[in-house]
Amino acid sequence: MNIRPETLQLYLVTERSLAAGRSLTDVVLAAVAGGVTIVQIREKAATTRAFIEQARALKTALNDSGVPLIVNDRVDVALAIGADGVHLGDDDMPCPEARRILGPTAIIGVSLAAAPGDGFADADYFAASPVFATDTKPDAGPALGLAGVAMLRRAVDRPLVAIGGIDQHNAARIIAAGADGIAVVSAIMAADDPTEAAAQLKTAVTRFS
Amino acid sequence: MNIRPETLQLYLVTERSLAAGRSLTDVVLAAVAGGVTIVQIREKAATTRAFIEQARALKTALNDSGVPLIVNDRVDVALAIGADGVHLGDDDMPCPEARRILGPTAIIGVSLAAAPGDGFADADYFAASPVFATDTKPDAGPALGLAGVAMLRRAVDRPLVAIGGIDQHNAARIIAAGADGIAVVSAIMAADDPTEAAAQLKTAVTRFS
Repeated sequence: MNIRPETLQLYLVTERSLAAGRSLTDVVLAAVAGGVTIVQIREKAATTRAFIEQARALKTALNDSGVPLIVNDRVDVALAIGADGVHLGDDDMPCPEARRILGPTAIIGVSLAAAPGDGFADADYFAASPVFATDTKPDAGPALGLAGVAMLRRAVDRPLVAIGGIDQHNAARIIAAGADGIAVVSAIMAADDPTEAAAQLKTAVTRFS
Repeated sequence: MNIRPETLQLYLVTERSLAAGRSLTDVVLAAVAGGVTIVQIREKAATTRAFIEQARALKTALNDSGVPLIVNDRVDVALAIGADGVHLGDDDMPCPEARRILGPTAIIGVSLAAAPGDGFADADYFAASPVFATDTKPDAGPALGLAGVAMLRRAVDRPLVAIGGIDQHNAARIIAAGADGIAVVSAIMAADDPTEAAAQLKTAVTRFS
């Protein structure tokens, strides 16, 4: 396991379109100041070169914080910038091939909507996705709900984060259901004060951890 | 140099939307039977997983032929399937980083619209792009023309292929201008008989080589 459960406590997934004129790096650093423990850069529309440039800038900015940077989907981008790992969904590279390419020390996370079958032995953590309905990812499957989080908690022996429609009001229930942490996009990316938003989420998470 | 000039003689770039109900693999194998010397798989809209599956099927199909398979843009896909190399454009991973990730024996090709500056020492071949206007890639820059091919031939000391609007009628002039080969998309992918289309293009190229 290349990641401790505590590192998943407050997991920020970037969404540049929500940054509202602010630089992605500025929003992320503000959120880290508020208590974000891990960052995933997600760029579904960017060219490879633009993705690399953005991810490298973010990695450089995060270096002093010790907060890991995970790349959504793109193993090539992760290799180019020396990211800490990748996060893989159903449409991305299969987990065993990503492990073979990235080596034993990379963090590999995998999104799950049901108990994992074969092929996930190489994952370091899992993400229950989506817990609630979300506007950020309209193509996500049906919501798992708190019962789904509890089911996955029993089904997997790895650190578990939950994502999808999580905010400061429901965060504590996610943790109570068995997740080690929460992943958010808009709750931080769209916040007027990302530091304050992150701090409130962190309080909700740690109160029940 | 990981590629000989002769290998660039007839370079097929795939475009699944032109396969008209035929499988990509079937069209490519038919074209190889007609004389295609190298294949590049290009998938700008596919998910990573779908791209890997398609590229792996094509690599398996091509194995017996000895025809190299190059992956457009995606170093991750190339690594996953054990492709022979990658082809990089302006929006893709910079050439030196691709070389560092893929190692010394991978074929790395780079598209050029002007004489290369620094940063291209790692390229094995260059593609003059676009030679003529083309409907296949409407976002390509202004056409280089035959004069542009001749200029690039003088400017670079690597194998040189030309792409963009090439068909059996203008192929010979591209070679006469100094290219080692021609790259085509629709001239083969959209042909009713890809074997015959490839054979005619091959004849046009080799007559002047």
